[in-house]
Amino acid sequence: MLYMIGLGLGDAKDITVKGLEVVRRCSRVYLEAYTSVLTVGKEVLEEFYGRKLILADREEVEQEANNILKDADISDVAFLVVGDPFGATTHSDLILRATKLGIPYRVIHNASIMNAVGCCGLQLYRFGETVSVVFWTDTWRPESFFDKVKTNRQNGMHTLCLLDIKVKEQSLENLIKGRKIYEPPRYMSVNQAAQQLLEIVQNQRIRGEEPAVTEETLCVGLARVGAEDQKIAAGTLQQMCTVDLGGPLHSLIITGGSLHPLEMEMLSLFSVPENSSESQSTDGL
Amino acid sequence: MLYMIGLGLGDAKDITVKGLEVVRRCSRVYLEAYTSVLTVGKEVLEEFYGRKLILADREEVEQEANNILKDADISDVAFLVVGDPFGATTHSDLILRATKLGIPYRVIHNASIMNAVGCCGLQLYRFGETVSVVFWTDTWRPESFFDKVKTNRQNGMHTLCLLDIKVKEQSLENLIKGRKIYEPPRYMSVNQAAQQLLEIVQNQRIRGEEPAVTEETLCVGLARVGAEDQKIAAGTLQQMCTVDLGGPLHSLIITGGSLHPLEMEMLSLFSVPENSSESQSTDGL
Repeated sequence: MLYMIGLGLGDAKDITVKGLEVVRRCSRVYLEAYTSVLTVGKEVLEEFYGRKLILADREEVEQEANNILKDADISDVAFLVVGDPFGATTHSDLILRATKLGIPYRVIHNASIMNAVGCCGLQLYRFGETVSVVFWTDTWRPESFFDKVKTNRQNGMHTLCLLDIKVKEQSLENLIKGRKIYEPPRYMSVNQAAQQLLEIVQNQRIRGEEPAVTEETLCVGLARVGAEDQKIAAGTLQQMCTVDLGGPLHSLIITGGSLHPLEMEMLSLFSVPENSSESQSTDGL
Repeated sequence: MLYMIGLGLGDAKDITVKGLEVVRRCSRVYLEAYTSVLTVGKEVLEEFYGRKLILADREEVEQEANNILKDADISDVAFLVVGDPFGATTHSDLILRATKLGIPYRVIHNASIMNAVGCCGLQLYRFGETVSVVFWTDTWRPESFFDKVKTNRQNGMHTLCLLDIKVKEQSLENLIKGRKIYEPPRYMSVNQAAQQLLEIVQNQRIRGEEPAVTEETLCVGLARVGAEDQKIAAGTLQQMCTVDLGGPLHSLIITGGSLHPLEMEMLSLFSVPENSSESQSTDGL
């Protein structure tokens, strides 16, 4: 059996009781380590689970899936994913491969950023399509995701922006020379995302388009959702450029315009003080 | 401290390790029992947690919230919610009340139907606004939610339909007479939801409107997501009227039109056989 197990969002103890039982009895346990991260590293998980973990990077999961699935028809293999197993499309791919090989699978769900963002008080059912904001380079500065934000806002829906993660990336030079030397991991902050968004807004104005979002649009920045030190800050997109939310992972929500009174009241718990770049402490701690 | 703890979707062991630790040391533990249900009852949870649970129905949470919050500033109180604590708006309300009373709170997240629906293979980021389908009565047959389905489909987004739950409802007669006699719980099935949807489609045709959905629209029915015996069936809306998914809880997805090849391939694992009302067994078991 292939077990796809969600680890949730915080630390080692965010795994479910059921998930932990399975991890402890599987013959091999893989940890997917490229679409998200917990606040603790592999060693902490290994100690808590009492099991050695095999790190699976993107290359491995996409190109060496058969290694992961080896003997999973006669023994139990676990594949651990931060958040819920269905956060990333590569995981559907692993399930399809297993099915083709006649290997049964089971999913043990957990919280993911897709539902845990509800903690800011915006109502989950009012979210529209989710977008990804990628790190711009000198030559690649995609703006097309902004159309989805526009559609969402035109229909009164909030937009969750997932912010880019670069793990185990090679520099162009190392890639060309075939050197397996990797850059340090990078995680986009709410500040960086907000700055890129404002640049898109400026570009749209230059082109004479009406931007769906302005400096004044109400946004919510979230950091380390589910962890003890999570931070949430509600304020304008302009304020999101400077708010200090600390370390990764960050997410950004662009609100859909008119808010329910209960949403407003919840957001007020997290509002960025006027004339300040400091966020409020969050979640009542 | 007020702890809002998600229980996930299946049985007692779907609580997180962190959640279980908190439950075991809180002075009072409430179980919210009106927005969703697990596959096991209160007694099974009590045995597994080793704690007595206090059932909190809607009336209590909305009207007697202060009882729940009593002494939570000097001791720890847990409020357990099936799925994730932010699935229902009443839970935001409890947090706001706590905050006003100066009671700190913490959220322990878990899977909810809002993210676990990803198990059918439809990509979560492509979902638009979520709608609720309520039980129609002779005199109350709301159709307005259908506009949201239309907006989602026009923009290529899937729609998750949450199906109605009636727990601890009084008949009109008992309500008028002030008798606290409650009807047996009712959970809307995918069949019932699909039939109501098709009736709306017919009504729209009669009014000369172009329905956003037809008998042939590709849908996905899900039952008991996260439980060992979960079932998923992909087929037309017409097929959803007769597919047999077993007991509650059910959810229905109306797809957003064009699908990603990976979505198609995943859905094919669950497709309803032609000329049959039986669904395929799911999740590889």
